[in-house]
Amino acid sequence: MKKLINRPGDVVETALAGMAAAHPDLRIDTKRRLIVRADAPVPGKVALVSGGGSGHEPLHGGFVGPGMLDAACPGEIFTSPVPDQILAATAAVEAGAGVLHIVKNYTGDVMNFEMAAELAEAESGGEVRAVVVNDDVAVQDSTYTAGRRGVGATVVLEKMAGAAAAQGRPLAEVVRVAEAVNARSRSMGMALTSCTVPAAGHPTFELGDDEMEIGIGIHGEPGRERMPLAPAREVAALLVEPLLADLPCTSGDSVLCFVNGMGATPLIELYVMFDEVARILRGQGIEIARSLVGPYITALDMAGCSVTLTRLDDDLVSLWDAPVRTPALRWGM
Amino acid sequence: MKKLINRPGDVVETALAGMAAAHPDLRIDTKRRLIVRADAPVPGKVALVSGGGSGHEPLHGGFVGPGMLDAACPGEIFTSPVPDQILAATAAVEAGAGVLHIVKNYTGDVMNFEMAAELAEAESGGEVRAVVVNDDVAVQDSTYTAGRRGVGATVVLEKMAGAAAAQGRPLAEVVRVAEAVNARSRSMGMALTSCTVPAAGHPTFELGDDEMEIGIGIHGEPGRERMPLAPAREVAALLVEPLLADLPCTSGDSVLCFVNGMGATPLIELYVMFDEVARILRGQGIEIARSLVGPYITALDMAGCSVTLTRLDDDLVSLWDAPVRTPALRWGM
Repeated sequence: MKKLINRPGDVVETALAGMAAAHPDLRIDTKRRLIVRADAPVPGKVALVSGGGSGHEPLHGGFVGPGMLDAACPGEIFTSPVPDQILAATAAVEAGAGVLHIVKNYTGDVMNFEMAAELAEAESGGEVRAVVVNDDVAVQDSTYTAGRRGVGATVVLEKMAGAAAAQGRPLAEVVRVAEAVNARSRSMGMALTSCTVPAAGHPTFELGDDEMEIGIGIHGEPGRERMPLAPAREVAALLVEPLLADLPCTSGDSVLCFVNGMGATPLIELYVMFDEVARILRGQGIEIARSLVGPYITALDMAGCSVTLTRLDDDLVSLWDAPVRTPALRWGM
Repeated sequence: MKKLINRPGDVVETALAGMAAAHPDLRIDTKRRLIVRADAPVPGKVALVSGGGSGHEPLHGGFVGPGMLDAACPGEIFTSPVPDQILAATAAVEAGAGVLHIVKNYTGDVMNFEMAAELAEAESGGEVRAVVVNDDVAVQDSTYTAGRRGVGATVVLEKMAGAAAAQGRPLAEVVRVAEAVNARSRSMGMALTSCTVPAAGHPTFELGDDEMEIGIGIHGEPGRERMPLAPAREVAALLVEPLLADLPCTSGDSVLCFVNGMGATPLIELYVMFDEVARILRGQGIEIARSLVGPYITALDMAGCSVTLTRLDDDLVSLWDAPVRTPALRWGM
């Protein structure tokens, strides 16, 4: 295992200390593992809280800031945050207008966010709603999930729901936006190599020098199919065709096209993939109205990529374009 | 070799086509390999042109846009752009206020930018100045370089000089800013693994499972020392101490601290490194006034990182903070 770490057991805490040193405009509690907007709670604003296992950076801590999340609570690597931690994040940002929990669909995450929401409502009397993201078309159920896994759409949803909250929309409307983004998004990923969890010290799975895995999860959990390595054009088709088969999306529609790196794939390869994805969409008459290219939801040091498509409407475009100021996504401020 | 590409020979062109599909606000010529601000030439503004071998993405094409570069010309992977290409980029953006060429100190780059500058001045009669970036303290001369190599400071310089040009400062003053950033910046990098050039198909160098290389170049060229793998804390000391020994920087000074990923190192490890770098600087009484963390000048799929420190003054801080809108760095617009 070759990693820039000190000890496998302190990676999350040390990385949080690094985030604190790099981003003084965030309030970071390295012990309790909370990343909070410096000016939270923001009076009258619906507060957005997300979280999940670490190892997917910049998700979620890198998306905390004006226009996106109010707080994030990272668990141990590939491990759900605990209810107390989610409760603390919720209490730190609740400002009287309600809280939205954004939860990727993994069994532990869903359970712990539910427990935290009940505790938070009991403590504060405020309303807590949740949206469960389940955009991954690769598998119906998986190692950690009943139903589809939550992956790339989480980034898009946190941006758009965050913008809706920043505009002062009420909780019910922020929930509606979040649910719309989830309903209009589909993702699928692939891996060229395994990731290595620091505490394990060895690759999560083995993949031959001439093999790739299509439909991989962001924890290295199995996908649809292991097959011989193929050119980018074929990989793009293997990812995009299942998305278009599942997403109600036809000629004349416009999408946000998000080509995501899994952690160890360099940007030049992601742009090669973007070109191939764009060719397929163009062939179907689907317009790429907005794009995102880069490593935004990763699986530690896995090499590979995922493609997320979100079918847009005018409101979602304006929410995407709205100002945001976080470590990982920033524009307009 | 496991890469998301079609053929080793068309990686640069396909990645440029992907950039064009993802960023319609740039003018990209995939055949002549030019990335140009859509609204160039910008009347009355000093124009900034950079370029160099591909394989370092987002450098340089990802830094084209308002507030940073007017044009970039990517060569073949790890190969200098040709003079005609640099000339075409220069002609595309020259707006009567002169052009600054930002050149990383590699023999081929310096030579080809010099030839292009002479041709451009002869053709247009406009003034072309150059700044050669040479911030890498690792080695005095190297495989591709007489004198120190140009690495991470290039990103900082392109941002700050780009902001100076956007403010309407004249060529001499933009040159002065660029030279100041170079003089005030030092970098050093390290590798956990080699990169693999697609056309070669095998790793550029071999590194044992328990080894790392300190002082590596961004093309995988040799550094200072190959040594046993060490914890992040020791790696940070090996990188930062030579920077502080060379950079006139004392207690009470403030710096921009840039922890860069080499392409295959995930963000969580870069934040671990940032924490360790910040500890050392804190111990010396040096304030981190601004930061940058992520893969901004890469070496294809190399795992590793580099640290760049730029000693700041009030003008440089305001130039860093000024609005920028490029694919890879964006804020304030």
